Amino acid sequence: MSHPIITLTTDYGTNDHLVGTVKGVILKINPDAKIVDITHNVVPYDVLDGALAIGSAYKYFPSKTVHLVIVDPGVGTERRPLLVSGEQQFFVGPDNGVFSLVYEKEERVTVRHVTAEHYFLNPVSKTFHGRDVFAPVAAWLTKVWQTQSFGEEITEFARFSLPKPKAADGAVKGVILRVDAFGNLMTNLTPADLPQQTLKNGAIKMQVADKEIGKLVETFAQGEAGVPVAFLGSSGFIEIAVNKGSAAKQLGAGRGVAVTVATS
Amino acid sequence: MSHPIITLTTDYGTNDHLVGTVKGVILKINPDAKIVDITHNVVPYDVLDGALAIGSAYKYFPSKTVHLVIVDPGVGTERRPLLVSGEQQFFVGPDNGVFSLVYEKEERVTVRHVTAEHYFLNPVSKTFHGRDVFAPVAAWLTKVWQTQSFGEEITEFARFSLPKPKAADGAVKGVILRVDAFGNLMTNLTPADLPQQTLKNGAIKMQVADKEIGKLVETFAQGEAGVPVAFLGSSGFIEIAVNKGSAAKQLGAGRGVAVTVATS
Amino acid sequence: MSHPIITLTTDYGTNDHLVGTVKGVILKINPDAKIVDITHNVVPYDVLDGALAIGSAYKYFPSKTVHLVIVDPGVGTERRPLLVSGEQQFFVGPDNGVFSLVYEKEERVTVRHVTAEHYFLNPVSKTFHGRDVFAPVAAWLTKVWQTQSFGEEITEFARFSLPKPKAADGAVKGVILRVDAFGNLMTNLTPADLPQQTLKNGAIKMQVADKEIGKLVETFAQGEAGVPVAFLGSSGFIEIAVNKGSAAKQLGAGRGVAVTVATS
Repeated sequence: MSHPIITLTTDYGTNDHLVGTVKGVILKINPDAKIVDITHNVVPYDVLDGALAIGSAYKYFPSKTVHLVIVDPGVGTERRPLLVSGEQQFFVGPDNGVFSLVYEKEERVTVRHVTAEHYFLNPVSKTFHGRDVFAPVAAWLTKVWQTQSFGEEITEFARFSLPKPKAADGAVKGVILRVDAFGNLMTNLTPADLPQQTLKNGAIKMQVADKEIGKLVETFAQGEAGVPVAFLGSSGFIEIAVNKGSAAKQLGAGRGVAVTVATS
Repeated sequence: MSHPIITLTTDYGTNDHLVGTVKGVILKINPDAKIVDITHNVVPYDVLDGALAIGSAYKYFPSKTVHLVIVDPGVGTERRPLLVSGEQQFFVGPDNGVFSLVYEKEERVTVRHVTAEHYFLNPVSKTFHGRDVFAPVAAWLTKVWQTQSFGEEITEFARFSLPKPKAADGAVKGVILRVDAFGNLMTNLTPADLPQQTLKNGAIKMQVADKEIGKLVETFAQGEAGVPVAFLGSSGFIEIAVNKGSAAKQLGAGRGVAVTVATS
Repeated sequence: MSHPIITLTTDYGTNDHLVGTVKGVILKINPDAKIVDITHNVVPYDVLDGALAIGSAYKYFPSKTVHLVIVDPGVGTERRPLLVSGEQQFFVGPDNGVFSLVYEKEERVTVRHVTAEHYFLNPVSKTFHGRDVFAPVAAWLTKVWQTQSFGEEITEFARFSLPKPKAADGAVKGVILRVDAFGNLMTNLTPADLPQQTLKNGAIKMQVADKEIGKLVETFAQGEAGVPVAFLGSSGFIEIAVNKGSAAKQLGAGRGVAVTVATS
């Protein structure tokens, strides 16, 4: 692989030198690396948001891609740096659950606690392990390709489950997981959570923040302008959108807000 | 061409996995592609804003560059995916007018309706054609370089004209097309719309949102601090700026606001 | 060097074609260049903010990297375009002090006034020297690698010093230089400015915007949730953070705000 791919998913934002510094460290170790930004706007310190970003994107990359994920509220504490080998790709980041969706989607993973400090920058700061630990580990991996040289395999590591929808009183209750650039609201509901009838005729009784949504459509562009609709989003979850508008603004709803669908 | 260039212009924003997913799809098909971000912050669903972005940038890229433009309010409906061959470069995106400025600037274009579904991801979602249709088409183009294999040429396709200035009552009336990062206001006026006298001596009678602008200068840095001035911007349109300030804030004006210049 | 690295640090923002155009110009001249974004969100026209960004990142890049820095409030005036050779890397940008931290950190620099107009685009606009002057100079440099062909060496050029902390009345007074994506406040204080006692036991008497900070910790993750703490940041300056929160919001403080530490 002449130009190994390293992707970046961070909560560093893009207003200062942080991202550029991480890229410099990678390129100094492996000038042939091809660096690909996934996002640097993960909600700061928000491990679930980071897990959703990398969990949604990684499958689309080629074999041997190395995904560097830095959402690290515990930097400088005892939380471990990890190197995860999935079926075909690699993941480098902190042991705080940010790879939970990767663990869920991959058939098998090998998780290593990275202890080979000769791969780190020296000295290692207490606050910028993206620069001093994770970036060098990802870059060296694309040179040596020997995961076992980075540390021992471990079998217990941090992971969490996405909040699951709950059935109760003739309804299923879910939650909004994220809002995208269009103001679309991604819920944790999947088609399996909806009444059979809804999937057939598109009639739905959905409630978000005291507003009613009555239609499940194939694509948000089928909605009347200004009327919120539900649809099956590209990540496999039910989303809420307003054609040519922002559902987030119109419904006054965002992450963590409850979503209810009547099932009887 | 060992490292073909694919540029990205989208309204996906940079807060989630969308852009990263598109890049992954491209690199899985052609790992040698060099992906270049133009912008991912086109105003959501705003085809004119997208047309301005790609229309202003594309000429500066090398021959054989493939420009992927995804501003697609009609995703999942009957609007067609297009592959456009310009004089030296290629364009992939929806048939909604987003290539209007390209059509205007290129001497000749060949526009194809992309129907070769074997190039698409399978299945094709109803809401993420950037991932499932446009990215794979752009990536495969840089492998096969045979535009005719993607679909038949068409001669009718969506296009629009930029709003044109209008002369009336001793004045020319234009409009603000966009606001840049500095708060500069780009109008649809060109030097040809201004009185000869103004081009000679720099005196102008311009009105925006009830504020007066009296000077046409060579560069905004020549303006007095805090005083709005007009100048010929780098895209060929008259712009309004405040030296070391934001014209957008100071004039309380933005996209769509009228601009009038007295011509007699 | 088969794929020379050119980094970009600008205040262009990422909402329009400006950055894409600069990248196109570079790639048209040298299609083998590897373009790396450091940041495009330098505070508009803010030379100090730009100087901090490039000054913090550049050391981490490989030898022969060319850093293109465009924060240029004086575009179109007499300010000179510069090509700076550091010990191992190169810098291209306007002569307005944006390289002040580079001058401070490098053992020796050679500063050239770029006058070789055959490297520029033709014509050169009055307002977009990033496209017409700086990008082509950076790109040609990665082809010819002969700095002397770009212009004569000069010995007087714009530079400024970072504001220095001042000791007075049993205290040292500093200032907040910047706010990062996490709301952390970077000051201009270094460990050398703090009382010996503080470095030993972590007790500090710091005041920012009428709020008190009582602890110097090793990493912000050691702070109690909601309590602002000071720590030594990764750039060598004292920073103020709130664990899992935003110090900027909680203290109501930002750039330019005074910071006082009692020293007796």
